[in-house]
Amino acid sequence: MQKHSNKDVNVNIGIEAEESIQIEGVSATATKFGESLRGIFRWRQSFFKLVWKQAIIYYLIYVSITLFYAFALDTGGQANFDAVASYLARYTSSLPVVLLLGFFTSTALNRWFNIMSSMPGTNRAITLFVVSLKDDVADGRARVDLYIRYVLLMWLLTFRIVCQPLRRRYPNLMAIQNAGLLCENERLLLEKHKGQPGGTSRTCSLVVYDWLNALLRETSQKGYFLVANDFGRNIDAIQALKKGGGTVIKFATKNIPVALIQAVTIAIYCYGLVSILSHQIAEKHYLTSVMSGYFPLPYALPFFFYYAWLKVGRIATDPFGNDEDDINMLNVFEGHINGAVRLRNSYGIKIPTSTTEDNPFFLT
Amino acid sequence: MQKHSNKDVNVNIGIEAEESIQIEGVSATATKFGESLRGIFRWRQSFFKLVWKQAIIYYLIYVSITLFYAFALDTGGQANFDAVASYLARYTSSLPVVLLLGFFTSTALNRWFNIMSSMPGTNRAITLFVVSLKDDVADGRARVDLYIRYVLLMWLLTFRIVCQPLRRRYPNLMAIQNAGLLCENERLLLEKHKGQPGGTSRTCSLVVYDWLNALLRETSQKGYFLVANDFGRNIDAIQALKKGGGTVIKFATKNIPVALIQAVTIAIYCYGLVSILSHQIAEKHYLTSVMSGYFPLPYALPFFFYYAWLKVGRIATDPFGNDEDDINMLNVFEGHINGAVRLRNSYGIKIPTSTTEDNPFFLT
Amino acid sequence: MQKHSNKDVNVNIGIEAEESIQIEGVSATATKFGESLRGIFRWRQSFFKLVWKQAIIYYLIYVSITLFYAFALDTGGQANFDAVASYLARYTSSLPVVLLLGFFTSTALNRWFNIMSSMPGTNRAITLFVVSLKDDVADGRARVDLYIRYVLLMWLLTFRIVCQPLRRRYPNLMAIQNAGLLCENERLLLEKHKGQPGGTSRTCSLVVYDWLNALLRETSQKGYFLVANDFGRNIDAIQALKKGGGTVIKFATKNIPVALIQAVTIAIYCYGLVSILSHQIAEKHYLTSVMSGYFPLPYALPFFFYYAWLKVGRIATDPFGNDEDDINMLNVFEGHINGAVRLRNSYGIKIPTSTTEDNPFFLT
Amino acid sequence: MQKHSNKDVNVNIGIEAEESIQIEGVSATATKFGESLRGIFRWRQSFFKLVWKQAIIYYLIYVSITLFYAFALDTGGQANFDAVASYLARYTSSLPVVLLLGFFTSTALNRWFNIMSSMPGTNRAITLFVVSLKDDVADGRARVDLYIRYVLLMWLLTFRIVCQPLRRRYPNLMAIQNAGLLCENERLLLEKHKGQPGGTSRTCSLVVYDWLNALLRETSQKGYFLVANDFGRNIDAIQALKKGGGTVIKFATKNIPVALIQAVTIAIYCYGLVSILSHQIAEKHYLTSVMSGYFPLPYALPFFFYYAWLKVGRIATDPFGNDEDDINMLNVFEGHINGAVRLRNSYGIKIPTSTTEDNPFFLT
Amino acid sequence: MQKHSNKDVNVNIGIEAEESIQIEGVSATATKFGESLRGIFRWRQSFFKLVWKQAIIYYLIYVSITLFYAFALDTGGQANFDAVASYLARYTSSLPVVLLLGFFTSTALNRWFNIMSSMPGTNRAITLFVVSLKDDVADGRARVDLYIRYVLLMWLLTFRIVCQPLRRRYPNLMAIQNAGLLCENERLLLEKHKGQPGGTSRTCSLVVYDWLNALLRETSQKGYFLVANDFGRNIDAIQALKKGGGTVIKFATKNIPVALIQAVTIAIYCYGLVSILSHQIAEKHYLTSVMSGYFPLPYALPFFFYYAWLKVGRIATDPFGNDEDDINMLNVFEGHINGAVRLRNSYGIKIPTSTTEDNPFFLT
Repeated sequence: MQKHSNKDVNVNIGIEAEESIQIEGVSATATKFGESLRGIFRWRQSFFKLVWKQAIIYYLIYVSITLFYAFALDTGGQANFDAVASYLARYTSSLPVVLLLGFFTSTALNRWFNIMSSMPGTNRAITLFVVSLKDDVADGRARVDLYIRYVLLMWLLTFRIVCQPLRRRYPNLMAIQNAGLLCENERLLLEKHKGQPGGTSRTCSLVVYDWLNALLRETSQKGYFLVANDFGRNIDAIQALKKGGGTVIKFATKNIPVALIQAVTIAIYCYGLVSILSHQIAEKHYLTSVMSGYFPLPYALPFFFYYAWLKVGRIATDPFGNDEDDINMLNVFEGHINGAVRLRNSYGIKIPTSTTEDNPFFLT
Repeated sequence: MQKHSNKDVNVNIGIEAEESIQIEGVSATATKFGESLRGIFRWRQSFFKLVWKQAIIYYLIYVSITLFYAFALDTGGQANFDAVASYLARYTSSLPVVLLLGFFTSTALNRWFNIMSSMPGTNRAITLFVVSLKDDVADGRARVDLYIRYVLLMWLLTFRIVCQPLRRRYPNLMAIQNAGLLCENERLLLEKHKGQPGGTSRTCSLVVYDWLNALLRETSQKGYFLVANDFGRNIDAIQALKKGGGTVIKFATKNIPVALIQAVTIAIYCYGLVSILSHQIAEKHYLTSVMSGYFPLPYALPFFFYYAWLKVGRIATDPFGNDEDDINMLNVFEGHINGAVRLRNSYGIKIPTSTTEDNPFFLT
Repeated sequence: MQKHSNKDVNVNIGIEAEESIQIEGVSATATKFGESLRGIFRWRQSFFKLVWKQAIIYYLIYVSITLFYAFALDTGGQANFDAVASYLARYTSSLPVVLLLGFFTSTALNRWFNIMSSMPGTNRAITLFVVSLKDDVADGRARVDLYIRYVLLMWLLTFRIVCQPLRRRYPNLMAIQNAGLLCENERLLLEKHKGQPGGTSRTCSLVVYDWLNALLRETSQKGYFLVANDFGRNIDAIQALKKGGGTVIKFATKNIPVALIQAVTIAIYCYGLVSILSHQIAEKHYLTSVMSGYFPLPYALPFFFYYAWLKVGRIATDPFGNDEDDINMLNVFEGHINGAVRLRNSYGIKIPTSTTEDNPFFLT
Repeated sequence: MQKHSNKDVNVNIGIEAEESIQIEGVSATATKFGESLRGIFRWRQSFFKLVWKQAIIYYLIYVSITLFYAFALDTGGQANFDAVASYLARYTSSLPVVLLLGFFTSTALNRWFNIMSSMPGTNRAITLFVVSLKDDVADGRARVDLYIRYVLLMWLLTFRIVCQPLRRRYPNLMAIQNAGLLCENERLLLEKHKGQPGGTSRTCSLVVYDWLNALLRETSQKGYFLVANDFGRNIDAIQALKKGGGTVIKFATKNIPVALIQAVTIAIYCYGLVSILSHQIAEKHYLTSVMSGYFPLPYALPFFFYYAWLKVGRIATDPFGNDEDDINMLNVFEGHINGAVRLRNSYGIKIPTSTTEDNPFFLT
Repeated sequence: MQKHSNKDVNVNIGIEAEESIQIEGVSATATKFGESLRGIFRWRQSFFKLVWKQAIIYYLIYVSITLFYAFALDTGGQANFDAVASYLARYTSSLPVVLLLGFFTSTALNRWFNIMSSMPGTNRAITLFVVSLKDDVADGRARVDLYIRYVLLMWLLTFRIVCQPLRRRYPNLMAIQNAGLLCENERLLLEKHKGQPGGTSRTCSLVVYDWLNALLRETSQKGYFLVANDFGRNIDAIQALKKGGGTVIKFATKNIPVALIQAVTIAIYCYGLVSILSHQIAEKHYLTSVMSGYFPLPYALPFFFYYAWLKVGRIATDPFGNDEDDINMLNVFEGHINGAVRLRNSYGIKIPTSTTEDNPFFLT
C-alpha cells in the first residue's frame, strides 16, 4: 500500500484543493487593477499550451502559401488563386461554427458538472460502519479492515471501467491483489464470475457489492450493531455507492453523439483552412499586404479561439483521462486510501478533550 | 431464458460500458497532438453514416441542374433561371434555421438526459429483498425467485410501452410466458385485467405491482423479515421502481411538439433546396464556375451540418429505438436478468474471507 | 362513475402512452432513410393545422395588395408605395423577434416540464394505505373505500383550480356529488367552509386534506396499521400530494409575465405586416415580379415559422387547456379512478403463484 | 387579526389561484383562431402599462428634434446634425444590447423561479404538530394555538427581512404584538435579543425558532406525542421552515451583480438616445421624411421591446415588492393565517362520514 | 472570541440581509417611473467602479494616438496608418467576443449559484444536538459547548481551504487556538496528523469530523439522547456538514478551464486595442473627426460593456475572495459564532409563554 503514499499525493475526494486556489488562473481579488492581465501569461493548463503546436503548423502553411503565391505563380495563376480563394472565403460566413461549437461545449460542460456532482466517495460508507459497530466486538478491528477493503475494492473496480489511468495502474485483478486490496481466494471468485454468462470485468464490482451486503447482514445477525436500525442505514450507504458509480458510468459511456463532435470538428478545420487560403486576397497597400502575408494574427486568432474552445469541450467529454484539466483519479484513489486509514484508526478512539476538562471556548 | 444469454450481451444497467470508452470517438487524452483529427475518420455512429445517402442524392440533383443550365437552357432561359435563383437565394438568410434548430436540439437533449437519469433499475428492489429476508425461511429461495421474477416482469411490462425493440422481442403476454417470466395462471389474470374497464396492455405492469405489494405484505405478516422496518423499505423500493417507470413513460409520450419538429424540418429542407438552386448565379470566372458547378462542398457543407444536427435531435427524441446512438434496451434487459441471477445466488452466501483470517490490507 | 368509463379513455397517470409512440411524429428509427420526410406530412398536432387559417388570411391580404398596386395605383402612387414599403422594410431587421421569441418559448417550455415533473398522482397515497392496513379490520374495505374517495376528491378539487376542462365537467360541488365522489353532509361542510373568512372553492381541497389526516389519525389510534410507523408514512404521502398540487398551482398561476407575451406577439405581428407590405419593392424582372406578387412563400415562410413557434410557446403556458398538445386531464382523472378501483380490489388479495408451486423462471 | 380578513384576500400559499387563470393573458385554448390577438389588448400587467410614460417622453423629444432640425437649423447646421447623427447611428449596431439583456433577464428569471420553489409555507409544520399531538392532552388546544402562533411569527419575522410591503404593514415588534402574534413578555425577550452582540431585527426569527424547538422538546418530554418518532419529524419540519426561509433570504440578498444591471440599463438608454437622434438622416422622399419625422414607430418599437424586457428582468430581481407581477406577500400571509385557523379547528375533528355509513362511491 | 464581535458584523448564514435590500441597486418597485435611472448613479459595486481605472488609461492612449496621427505623421504616414488601422478593424468583427463571453459568464454564474446553494451551515447540526440531549445530563452544558466548538472548528478548517480572507485571519492552527476554538492537546493532534502520510492542513477538518463522530458515539453509549434514533440523526447532520463542505471545495477547486478564461480575456483585449487603433479612419467631416478624435465613447462603450461583463464573470469564479460582490466569509463565520452562542444558551430553556397562560392570538 505504501508505495503510492508519496507525500505529494495527499488528496481526499472532499478535500482536493491545492494550497492556494489562485493557481487556477483567477486571483482572489478579480477587481484589483491589472489582475486580469496577469492570468494571461500562465502556461500550465493554458490556452497557449493547448494550441502552440497547431499554431506553428498553421504559420508554416500560411507563409508557404504566401511565398508560393508571390514567387511561383505568374499573374494568371495569381488571378486564378484569387478567384478560388475569394470563392471559398465567401462560404466561411455561412458555416455555423459558433453555434455548433456553443451547443457542443455547453452540452459537454453540463455532462462534466453532472459527473462531478454524482461521483461517489467511500467516506460515508466507511464512517457509518465504523460509528455503528459496537466497541466490544471480538473481531471488531478485523471486521472494520475487511469492510474498508471491500469498499475501496468496489470503488476501484467501478472507476477502472471509465478511467484509463486507473486501468493502466491496475491492469488486471492480479495487480489489484498485489496492491493488497484482494485476497487470493477472492480473486479466484472474481475470475470465476467473469467466466459465467453475463460476467465481465465490468460486473466484478457488483460481486464485491454482494460481499459487502453479506458482510453487513452477518454483522447484523450477530448483533454487532449499536442500534438495530444501523443495518438499514449501512445498506443504504452501500446502495448509494453503487448507484453513484452507476451514474458516473452511464454518463461516461452514453457520450455526446459522435456525429455532433465530428460535425463541429470538421466545421472548425474548414474554417481554419479557408482562413489560411483567403488571406492574400484583398490587400493592395504595401504595408497591409506584408502584414497579411507574414503576420497571420487577424486570420489566425478567431480560428484558434474556436479551436481552443473545441479542445475545452473535448476535454470535458472525458473527465477521467490524462489531460491536465482532467480529474486525477490516481490522486483521488490515494486520498480515499488515506481517508480509509484515518477512519480505521478512528474506530474506538476517544475525543481528545473530555467534557469535564477546561474548555477554551468561552461563550458568554 | 438462456437463448438471449449469448456472451456478447452482458450489460447491466449500472455497468454498461464497453471495454474502453475511447471508442466513443473521444480519446482519453484530448490534448495530445493530432488526436482531434483521428476521431473524424470514424464510421460507426458517425456524421458520414448519418448523411451519406442524402449526400449522394444532393450531388445528383446538384449536377443535373448544372448540366441542365449549361446545355438545355438558352441565354434567355439562363437569365430567367438566374433571376429566380437569386430571388430565392435572398430569402435563405431570413430563414431562422439555426435558432429553430438550436432550440429543438437542446430541448431534445435535455429530455434525453432526463430520461437517462430517471430510468429505474431492478437492482435496488431485488437487493433489498434478498438482504432483508431471514435465512431460515422454509420457502426462502422460492420466495426470492418469485420476487425477482415479478420485479423483472414489472420492468419489462413497463418498458415494452415505450421501447419498440422490446415490443418486437416480446410481442404479447404469451411470448413473455414462453420466456419463463410468466406463469399460465398469471397470464390469464393479466388477460382478464385487459378485459376490464381501464385495463390495457399498458396497465398490466400495475397489476404486477399489486402482486409485488401483496407478496411483501405476506412476507411481512409471516414475520420473514429480519427487521420489522424492512417491510416499509421494500415497499418504498417498489414504489421507486413504479415511479421511475412512470417518469420515463411520461417523458417518452409527452414529446416535443410535433409542430416544432415539422417547422425545423421544413426550414432545413428549404435551406437545402435553395442551396442547390442558387449555386450557379454569381460565378463568372472559369475556375470558380467549374467549382461551383460540380463541387458543391461550399454550398452543401452548411446544409449537411444542419441536417446532421437535426438528425441528432431526432434520435434524442426517441431514446429507446433502433438507432445506433439509442439505448439498447434488449441488452439492458439482458443485463438486468444476469444481475438478478447473481443477486438470487447471493441469498445466504458467506463472505469469501472470514474476519479472523489473514487480511492482505495492511493499514498502518 | 360509469359514464366516463368508455373504453377509449383508459389512461393512468404513470401509463398514459398510446399503443405506439411513433404517432408523435418521430419514428423509432430516426436514422432510416426518408424517415424525416414522412413526419412532415402529418396533420394532427401539426405545424399546418396551427397556421392554415392565418395562412389563408395572409395570402388574401398579400394578393390584394399586389392587385391594388398593379391596377389601382398610378406611377406616382406606386413610387410612394415603394418608398413607404422600403422605409418599413428597413426596420424589420432591427426587430428583436428571434431573441424575444427564443427567450419566451424556452421559459415557457421549462415551466411546462416543471409542471409535468411535479404533477402529483394518487397511486402512492392509496397504495400505502391499502398495504399498511391490517387484513382483519372490521370495516376494512369501507375504510379503504372512504380513503380512496377522499384522495380522489382532493386531487379533483386541486386540479379543478387550474384546469378548465375539469371545471367544465364538474362545474360545482353538486356535480361532484352526483359523480359519487362526495356525500351530502360532506358537500354541506364544504359549502359551509366557503362561507367562512378565507374560504373559497380553491381552499376546499384543504378541507378534504384535513379529513384525510383525521382519517389516518383515527386509523392509527384504533391500531389498524400493521406497523406503528405506517401512520407517519401515510401522513407523508398525503403531504406530498398536497405539496405537489400546490406546486402545480403555483406554476400555473404565477405565469410568464404578460408584458413579455404581449411584446413578443406584437413583434411577430409587426414582422408579418412588414413582410406583406414590402414584397413588391425590388423585383424588376418579369418572372420574379410575378413570383413576388402571387407566391409569397419566401416572405411568408419565416413569418409562419415564428408564428408557429409562438403558438408552441403559448400552448406550453397553459398545459391543462383544450389544445391538442395539452395534457388531457379528463383522461388523467379517469385513469386515476381506474387505478383506484384496481388498488381497492387489491386490498387483501393473494399473490397468484404460491411460493411452493413450480416456478417457471429457472435461474441457473 | 380580523382586520386583514376582508373577503377578497383569501389566498393560501398552495392555493393562490384566481378564479380563472386565463386572466393571465393566455387563454386556455391557445390554438383557437384569433386568440393570440385578444391578449394584446389587455391593460393590467401589460406591456403598454410598463412603457406608456416613457413612450410619451420619447415622442416629445423625437418631435422636438424634428421641429428643431426643420425650422431652427440652416443648411450648414443640418449638414452638421446629419454628420453627427450618422456618426452615432453607426455605433448602435456594435452595442451588445440584445446579449446583455438576454443574459440579464434569463439570470433574473432563473433566480425568481428558484425563490418561488424554495418559499417555505407554514402548512406542513402545523399539520404535523396537530396530527401528532394526543387528543386527551389537558392543554392540547392551547398548546396547538401557541405552536401555530410561533410558526406564523417565525414566518413573518423571516419574510419581513426581504419584503418591503410586510415591513410597512408591520414596521416593528409592537405592531406585530398589536396584531396578536406576540405577547408582551415575548416582545421584551426579542427586544433584549436585539441588544445582544450579533442580535438584530434579522435574527429575531431565530429566537422564535429556538422557542419552537423548546416547545416541541417539552411536548415530547411530557409524552404528548402519539408516537415517539413524531418528535423528530416535527423538529425536521421546523428545520425545513428555517432552511427555506434562509434560502429565500440568500437568493434575495445575494442579488444579480449591480454592475451587470447598470451596464444593461446604460446600453439600452444609449440605444434609445441614438434611435431618437438618428431618425431624420436618410429619408429624402417626401412621404417617408414626414413619417420619419413624426411617426417614430419603426425607431421606437425595438427600443421599447428592449425596455420592456429590461423591466421584466428588474421586476424579477425583487419578487416581493409592490409591482403588479410581484408575489403579494400580504395576501400570502393572510392565506397562512386562514390556513392556520382551519388547521387549528381540525385538531380533534371527526371525519364527516363514518366508515360504516353508506358510501356514495361505488367501485365495481 | 469577543474581539470579532463588533456590533457591525452580525450576520448569520441564513439571515445575512442588510436592513433594506433596495440597496442592491434594484428598488422594490421596479415599475415606478424613473426608477431605472436612479440605479445607474450608484457607486458601490458599480459598473463605473469596475472600469474607471481602465477607462482613464484607455482615454490617454486614445488621445495620444489622435495627437500622434495629427501632428507627428505626414500624409504618407497617415495613409499607412489608415491602411493598417482599417486592415485591423476589419477582423474585429470576426472575433467571437460575445459568444465566448456569454459562454464564460453563464458558466461562471451557474457555478456560483451552485456553490451558494450547497454552502453548509452549522445551525442544523448544533440544533439537533441541543434538542436531542437529555436535560439532566451531568456534564450537559460542557458537552454542548464541546460539540459546538468542534462543529465551528470543522466549518472553519473546511472553509479556510477555499477562502483567502479566512486564511489571512487564521493563518495557522496557533491562531485558531488563540481564538479559543482549539485546545493545546487538540492542536498537537492536528499537527501530528499533518505529519502523517496523506495529512495536510486540508485534511485537518476530517480529523475534527472523526472527533465529532466519536463524541456522538460516546453520548449515545452513555444513553444521553432523549430517543435512541437521535444518534443516527445527529450522525447524518455531521455527514451533511462534511458533504456540503466537500461540494464547495470541489466546485471551488475544479474551476472553469483556464484556457477558456485566457481565450476570452485575450479576445476582449484585442477588441479594445483595435477599437482604439481604428478610430480615426473614416471621419472626413470636421465635427465628427473632432468627436472621433477626442470623444471615444462610441468606440469605448461596447468595449467597456464587454470588459465589465468579463469582470462579473471573473468575480463569480472566486466567490470567497475580497471583491465587494464576494461572499464575506468573515461575517458569515461571525454569524455562525453568534448563532452558536444563541443555540448554546437555548439548551434547557423554557418557552416564554406557558400553554396555560392567556394567548393573544384569538383564532375564531
